[in-house]
Amino acid sequence: MAKELTTKEENYSQWYNDLVTKSDLAENSAVRGCMVIKPYGYAIWEKMQAALDQMFKDTGHENAYFPLFIPKSFFSKEASHVDGFAKECAVVTHYRLKNDAEGKGIIVDPEAKLEEELIVRPTSETIIWSTYKNWVQSYRDLPILVNQWANVVRWEMRTRMFLRTAEFLWQEGHTAHETKEEALAETEKMINVYADFVENYMAVPVIKGAKSEHERFAGALETYSIEALMQDGKALQSGTSHFLGQNFAKAFDVQFSSREGKLEYVWATSWGVSTRLIGALIMAHSDNNGLVLPPRLAPIQVVIVPIYKSLEQLDLISVKVKELVAQLKKLGIRVKYDDRDSQRPGWKFAEYEMKGVPVRLAIGPRDLENGTIEIARRDTLEKKVEQLDGLAAKVADLLEEIQHHVFTKALKYREEHTTKVDTWDEFKEQLKNNPGFILAHWDGTSETEAAIKEETKATIRCIPFDSPEEQGVCIYSGKPSSKRVLFALSY
Amino acid sequence: MAKELTTKEENYSQWYNDLVTKSDLAENSAVRGCMVIKPYGYAIWEKMQAALDQMFKDTGHENAYFPLFIPKSFFSKEASHVDGFAKECAVVTHYRLKNDAEGKGIIVDPEAKLEEELIVRPTSETIIWSTYKNWVQSYRDLPILVNQWANVVRWEMRTRMFLRTAEFLWQEGHTAHETKEEALAETEKMINVYADFVENYMAVPVIKGAKSEHERFAGALETYSIEALMQDGKALQSGTSHFLGQNFAKAFDVQFSSREGKLEYVWATSWGVSTRLIGALIMAHSDNNGLVLPPRLAPIQVVIVPIYKSLEQLDLISVKVKELVAQLKKLGIRVKYDDRDSQRPGWKFAEYEMKGVPVRLAIGPRDLENGTIEIARRDTLEKKVEQLDGLAAKVADLLEEIQHHVFTKALKYREEHTTKVDTWDEFKEQLKNNPGFILAHWDGTSETEAAIKEETKATIRCIPFDSPEEQGVCIYSGKPSSKRVLFALSY
Repeated sequence: MAKELTTKEENYSQWYNDLVTKSDLAENSAVRGCMVIKPYGYAIWEKMQAALDQMFKDTGHENAYFPLFIPKSFFSKEASHVDGFAKECAVVTHYRLKNDAEGKGIIVDPEAKLEEELIVRPTSETIIWSTYKNWVQSYRDLPILVNQWANVVRWEMRTRMFLRTAEFLWQEGHTAHETKEEALAETEKMINVYADFVENYMAVPVIKGAKSEHERFAGALETYSIEALMQDGKALQSGTSHFLGQNFAKAFDVQFSSREGKLEYVWATSWGVSTRLIGALIMAHSDNNGLVLPPRLAPIQVVIVPIYKSLEQLDLISVKVKELVAQLKKLGIRVKYDDRDSQRPGWKFAEYEMKGVPVRLAIGPRDLENGTIEIARRDTLEKKVEQLDGLAAKVADLLEEIQHHVFTKALKYREEHTTKVDTWDEFKEQLKNNPGFILAHWDGTSETEAAIKEETKATIRCIPFDSPEEQGVCIYSGKPSSKRVLFALSY
Repeated sequence: MAKELTTKEENYSQWYNDLVTKSDLAENSAVRGCMVIKPYGYAIWEKMQAALDQMFKDTGHENAYFPLFIPKSFFSKEASHVDGFAKECAVVTHYRLKNDAEGKGIIVDPEAKLEEELIVRPTSETIIWSTYKNWVQSYRDLPILVNQWANVVRWEMRTRMFLRTAEFLWQEGHTAHETKEEALAETEKMINVYADFVENYMAVPVIKGAKSEHERFAGALETYSIEALMQDGKALQSGTSHFLGQNFAKAFDVQFSSREGKLEYVWATSWGVSTRLIGALIMAHSDNNGLVLPPRLAPIQVVIVPIYKSLEQLDLISVKVKELVAQLKKLGIRVKYDDRDSQRPGWKFAEYEMKGVPVRLAIGPRDLENGTIEIARRDTLEKKVEQLDGLAAKVADLLEEIQHHVFTKALKYREEHTTKVDTWDEFKEQLKNNPGFILAHWDGTSETEAAIKEETKATIRCIPFDSPEEQGVCIYSGKPSSKRVLFALSY
């Protein structure tokens, strides 16, 4: 029998966990809070990396690699930065193990204590800006447009696969600029790159905006984020881009001689997305039968399952299928022919449904006679019979259509779950009965923001860039406000 | 003035360090033993990764990702494994920092001590085999053919950029098999993949063979390696593939029900190459003017430098160059047009020579009149003038020729520095006056191996696969030997 999922309606959180493990994306490891990303999950990450990496390169960035470890003293140089990360740091204190003299087995050698403890990077601003100090003398050395693909560690207490893990994989861009304007433009450019990627590859619509002061990255003057809505009505922050001002340049004394011959501090940005995006991908589209993957990121875009009784039939089918596979590959389509004799077609159908393969083709002896094939799409679960002649081109079109449809469906969901709210009662009511994005007026103070969070758990996800000027009053304090901001419960 | 290198003849070691920093490949970081891989160095690593990754996939492997941290108890489960790595482990003991109550700044929170220490992975056999236990029940679950791209940490006392660093980047394949024969075949397949990559992409000839018992990986029953010869006559181990027998399956109790219905332990291999390969690439080919990169791994294969007096001339040249760039790109060639007005042509020539760009094209007003261009190759430093018409195809051919020539030159060097030696005096004499590979008879004992190392620092690099059966006597002990083995000084 096929693997079964807890339904979304029954228990959304359990549905998610079931889905991650049963579709073979990842599993919890023996190390607290760390996951094992299994080959199928990692293949999705590779597709994401390839697309993002190309986008970074197309916008002038290069990759580099900086140390995993950060000396504790570096980490402390930017005050709000260390405050933001100190509570969740993995700390290396020793560099050797030894056999215990009293027979207790392998122990940490007390004589191999580091003079200065090393922090496993939770993010790399400090180690990178200590390096940039050597790279920058003059305005001619700027901008520096560097990205790093790496693992980072944040000792989170409550973890969930992909969404929040102690170790995760990500990319972090770290750029250095002559002027404030240039750094701000970079910050905006990169949040746009992320939005482009998430909408056009992941098929997840996002809202771009600025974080409130309270929600900013530790050490940033501005944090821009993209916010996506999951199927339980909660928001997921899917990417952030930070304008760091001159904070890190000042902390690490990175100055340059300007075009005017003056010594000035360098302006900085940083920006990142992580394996958390896989969590967003899963939660935005999947259903009670399993994953639904947008074709552009699906490791397998098309699976072909033969239906046969005898091995002679299988041989005849395979001849035809191999031609088709060649045609599909020629169009750049990632196709798998599953001719394993150890599993029945029904089991395979359920398996690839669970794994979210966008298109499934099934072909039997009757099809061979008629020159036909059955084609099923994962997103709508629709099936129809098509002529084999000219099928490859049709499949290519169908993949485009599915990519588009998955996005449209998610956009429709978001639209149905985005509400303008003008009173505090309505706000609470909405969060309780129809959670989603809420556009409401806010007085701009951290006190009000904290009070709203305290009473409802809802946070300001962002101040949307496209939020129009509109006079109103704060839903909580009644004070004047000129713009609606985006509230939601969130991951 | 162009940057200058210490010459190889003057001080080989200093030449190497100069080269790494002056060609912008890498630099030492503020963290002891860790390097910063700069964009130009990382671009070479990306090319290596892309080629290797494709080769792994073509041989049926998939990528996955396992935790950075290994619980100390896991690490100790395979006895010889922990012996091999215990002396150089980074150990995480705490998970939080805090502000010191006595005003000493940020300190490690003594209350946030881990119950069990975590080791930053020096290699992942233990964490991976503890995971495979859940993946394997029956022979149907085998083989597992998984690779991981990751960072690892080995707390080396003496470090050198790329060659030996505390943290380095690598890939580690970990496979699980039904039978000993299958695991041995995998071990051999992967050392062949590495040899293919190093010879055909890096243009470095290698000798394949088995390690002596003493030089095996901690926990392996067989270690195969590829050994390359550097220009100072020292060997560099460039890749290893290990047959692990059932050692890790036994340590982590990974059993499967066989085709015969019996419960058996799984057979294992692991294999890896690292950023050390970049060290090999540098040392095998470069000269006193800088890097010499084989075209297949060169981030920039062709650079075009305009020679002009006025900006009008530059404009005219640029029109022509842009056509050429388009033609070269169409052939898949990585080309850079360096039209920066801030540097003179002579400076640019020296810069791209330092960076090892295989082909340099220079074009001035006279060339425009004559329809010509100057073409210089980095490997031989030869220059000639060519017709612009049909140049792109000629450049493509030249890149192939350079790739071939760089390999041939390295092979010739190795042949000239490989000697058969039959007496102990000859052996010592050779190591002193003409270091290189030495093929000599050895009695097969660890005692003799240790004595030779003690007296000369030379080690057995490998027992070459293609070493013919040949009766002889051990150069050290005079005992009988049936085969020559490969000795050298090494990195």
